[in-house]
Order: sequence, then C-alpha cells, then structure tokens
Amino acid sequence: MTTYTATVTVRLKHGVLDPEAETTKRALERLGFELDALRFTEQYEVDLDAESAEVAEERATEMADRLLANPTIHDYDVVVAEA
Amino acid sequence: MTTYTATVTVRLKHGVLDPEAETTKRALERLGFELDALRFTEQYEVDLDAESAEVAEERATEMADRLLANPTIHDYDVVVAEA
Repeated sequence: MTTYTATVTVRLKHGVLDPEAETTKRALERLGFELDALRFTEQYEVDLDAESAEVAEERATEMADRLLANPTIHDYDVVVAEA
Repeated sequence: MTTYTATVTVRLKHGVLDPEAETTKRALERLGFELDALRFTEQYEVDLDAESAEVAEERATEMADRLLANPTIHDYDVVVAEA
C-alpha cells in the first residue's frame, strides 16, 4: 500500500451565479485593484492508502460524487500524486 | 498589456484547527471511506491585465496580503499564467 494525496478541485459550473466571488471582486475594486474577473474554487487534499494511483483516483472520484461536489451546480477534477 | 490569470491558494497555517475539514473527513468515514487526512484550501483565480507576469504576480500578492488571506492564520501562494 502506498500513500497518495488526491486533490479534488470543486468549482461552480459555468453560468451558476457566485455571490461570494462577486463580493470579493467588488471588495478588491474598492481597495483600488483593477481586475477583469474572479473565480472561487475549493480544493480538498485527501491523503489515502491505496494499491495504485488508479485505485486512489477512483476512490477520490467516488468521494467527490457522493459528498464533496454537488453535481447540480459543481464540476470537479481529481489529481493524484504520491504523498 | 497582457491578460494573466493569477491563482492565489489560501490554506490554514500548520497547527490551526480546521473544523470544516474535520467534519468533512468524518462524514466521508461515515460513508465508508478510509482516509488518513483531509485538508481544505481555497483558491481565487483572478484575471487581470498587466505589463508583465512579474507585475501581475506583485498585484495578486498585494490582493492576498490586503484581502484574500488572513496573515494570522493563513499561508498563501501565488501562481501566474497567461490567460
């Protein structure tokens, strides 16, 4: 068994409103910064033991499907590396 | 002027308690997943126009210092790429 770190990045689907990002963008503009756009994503770094990177990725994908991401509004991707 | 995307990753400093990550880890365990640890990070992807990647990185770092990260509890890093 090897220890892997699976990084699950969860972002809102294109077209889903993101009031938190919009508020952050406006706050930066009030501070005098100029920016075109701001997107907010969440990342979960999961350390887990698995037989191979493929198995680790499968399990992290299942975690995303079942809990970490909401398929109605989120896209996600999973990247696995040896810890 | 070129458009760059600066990705600011904000994570809790080592030793700072993260109840959200702890709750997520326990919820995954209740679903039957086995994992060693779970860390939660936030990422801001900022699109901005700048003369060079160095200038874009400087400005994104200032955004992190002034608003996106709380220096008492957070570490952050900034990665800049052409959009």
